[in-house]
Amino acid sequence: MSWPRVKVNVSPLWTELEQLAQISDVQPPAVTRILFTANDRKARAFLKDRFAEASLSVREDPAGNIFARWHGEDAQAVPIATGSHIDAVPFSGRYDGTVGVLGALEAIRALQRSGWRPARSIDLVVFTSEEPTRFGIGCLGSRLLSGSLSAEQAAALIDSEGKSFEYVRRQAGCTGSLEDVRVRVGHYAAFVELHIEQGRILEQKQLPIGVVTAIAGPAALRVELTGEGGHAGAVLMPDRKDALCAAAEIILAAEEAAKGSGSPDTVATTGVCRVHPAAINSIPSKITLEIDVRDIDLGRRDQVLEQIQRAAHAVGQRRGLATEVAVRSADSPGRAGSKIIHAIQAACRHLGHDYLSMVSRAYHDSLFMAQLAPTGMIFIPCRGGVSHRPDEYTSPEAIGVGVEVLALTLVQLASDTSENPAS
Amino acid sequence: MSWPRVKVNVSPLWTELEQLAQISDVQPPAVTRILFTANDRKARAFLKDRFAEASLSVREDPAGNIFARWHGEDAQAVPIATGSHIDAVPFSGRYDGTVGVLGALEAIRALQRSGWRPARSIDLVVFTSEEPTRFGIGCLGSRLLSGSLSAEQAAALIDSEGKSFEYVRRQAGCTGSLEDVRVRVGHYAAFVELHIEQGRILEQKQLPIGVVTAIAGPAALRVELTGEGGHAGAVLMPDRKDALCAAAEIILAAEEAAKGSGSPDTVATTGVCRVHPAAINSIPSKITLEIDVRDIDLGRRDQVLEQIQRAAHAVGQRRGLATEVAVRSADSPGRAGSKIIHAIQAACRHLGHDYLSMVSRAYHDSLFMAQLAPTGMIFIPCRGGVSHRPDEYTSPEAIGVGVEVLALTLVQLASDTSENPAS
Repeated sequence: MSWPRVKVNVSPLWTELEQLAQISDVQPPAVTRILFTANDRKARAFLKDRFAEASLSVREDPAGNIFARWHGEDAQAVPIATGSHIDAVPFSGRYDGTVGVLGALEAIRALQRSGWRPARSIDLVVFTSEEPTRFGIGCLGSRLLSGSLSAEQAAALIDSEGKSFEYVRRQAGCTGSLEDVRVRVGHYAAFVELHIEQGRILEQKQLPIGVVTAIAGPAALRVELTGEGGHAGAVLMPDRKDALCAAAEIILAAEEAAKGSGSPDTVATTGVCRVHPAAINSIPSKITLEIDVRDIDLGRRDQVLEQIQRAAHAVGQRRGLATEVAVRSADSPGRAGSKIIHAIQAACRHLGHDYLSMVSRAYHDSLFMAQLAPTGMIFIPCRGGVSHRPDEYTSPEAIGVGVEVLALTLVQLASDTSENPAS
Repeated sequence: MSWPRVKVNVSPLWTELEQLAQISDVQPPAVTRILFTANDRKARAFLKDRFAEASLSVREDPAGNIFARWHGEDAQAVPIATGSHIDAVPFSGRYDGTVGVLGALEAIRALQRSGWRPARSIDLVVFTSEEPTRFGIGCLGSRLLSGSLSAEQAAALIDSEGKSFEYVRRQAGCTGSLEDVRVRVGHYAAFVELHIEQGRILEQKQLPIGVVTAIAGPAALRVELTGEGGHAGAVLMPDRKDALCAAAEIILAAEEAAKGSGSPDTVATTGVCRVHPAAINSIPSKITLEIDVRDIDLGRRDQVLEQIQRAAHAVGQRRGLATEVAVRSADSPGRAGSKIIHAIQAACRHLGHDYLSMVSRAYHDSLFMAQLAPTGMIFIPCRGGVSHRPDEYTSPEAIGVGVEVLALTLVQLASDTSENPAS
């Protein structure tokens, strides 16, 4: 293996991260960028301009996934891919996802500057809506690509304003049929994603690189409680069917279930609690809870999920409320491909960076790309493990190391065309 | 006492209630009409037109309280007043408040048709924002009139979008200084308000009229919890400071405190629970709760209020959250004036309607008008005691009876000018 001499320029990359962060619904340092809003569209346009400047061929599929291709010299070889997402949950930070998009762009530019040319084409993918903010289900783009979500299911998703995914993607200018988004297994020879850790393990161990071996399996639960509203002064306590009091019990039951699973790897979070009608002098008649449950062990995750569902029904029944509980998504944990793990490790060794094999507790588009191709992830540390918050931070130096490792991983995966994946 | 022969026309009144209900932010039968929104302003214009048709002189004070005057024959006599409010909490019904405004208009029209003329002028008052929806504090207009809320305090109130009361009233076209809203004690010789019961006592006892002797004292508490956000997958359970889990404990503590007060008259309601950032995969970092506590016994109400505040601080401390608890308002229960009670009772007897002396559990502008003048309330039944809900209902017949009783109460209060209140 002959390694190109790659020099990553962190300064323009840092500026681009800064510019992207400005395209947001809220004031800096917080970032809010939600699928197909004006700012999301503006951010997509910003990226397409950067991709074009790097001479990549840009196309967008009917779901809004963006593919920026660096054409390989062997037109017959199956391409490889890298990438991540740029949507940002409300009041979050500027590195989650974006480092894997703009970092991959700089990796490609650094490789271009080095004079190296890929044998296989390299697609830089910007996945649509990795975050579940708008439609309550994450990784929309990669789920559709992998077929984990059917075109029909995706089209029917409804946001909190009652708009469907089909409607908003068309409003955003996406054309064609969602049926055409899915690609076959073997469409890519490999996928690798650069991402901040969103935990504090690398920071605590003072290591620059995490090589992901598995991704925790996330599940999302929606609980809808319908009680009886009424005037907060006039309805006496024994006559009430207060949906918020029932919700409070369920929120605590979810916390208790995760804490009591027997493993520190189980987490449960009620991130959304929508109250209707939400007036101080009206008894809440309707509540929607969105609950997220994760574990690296599928059996334990499903046990906790089950326990929360039982608690919700029991609380609803005891309080006389109509209770609907739906599992909105429940994905199995994913395993990284050994070929990709080895390539990342070899890149680290060549560059002289220590690394740690680790599990991803957050989930990523890689979880679904792993269904299509051997997949791996490169983690870099972030300060205090903080993510999904305005004070999310990772240093330019840490990003530079991640981009170097990504570049040399791409070199390995895109050089060898002797072996094409089975389709 | 010579009684005029009053004939109430329910049909046009019913149509006007229907027309007013159409001026709403949501689809019928639900009504949402919030202070100084486009629909609130449209509704105000609708009323002013109706008042002008009845030859009433209309003026509006700097807080947006509307006064429609039927001039009395004795220009020296202190006027009396009647009225209620037209703002409607989100997804509520069409009778709360509106019956006391449009019903009073029909009472005046019926008296005009009968040939009777008042000695004292009669003001029909439409109070600004009886509901606390927008600024978290109810009875804004009557609080300002009575001086329970200073002009300075009112101007500084901030809505959930960060707009001040001073700003929104000016945007809505209110001119002049809030300092000029307050009136002196003795400005009115009497005040009487027609309103739906918002409870089920009259319905259960099959009585057409309730004569209110006291109004429960409401208090409003705001709890703000600030914990730590973060990624729902990456932050392990022991490392969390989840503000929603803390809020859940406080919601249940408020319910428990009211249930355990020893009296069925105590009620506590958490009507608002605002979550930040409200994404399924972000740990809630900030919660605002709005809690309403009421009782007809002030001491017991304050004990429960105290208990909820203690619980909030204890939960916040145990979970390591910053906890702010503010009593937004805490009003004493009000007593009706015996002169007004007697006038309502005499009207009922003259018309042959049975009545019940009762307490108002909901609070009303009458609570603050009672600080300015002898005050009374006429209750009519509503179906199932339901209020603040789209299925709120009271029959045209029940409204007709209420309007008749109101008309003959006004006759008594506006005829006798022998005695003027001390100012």
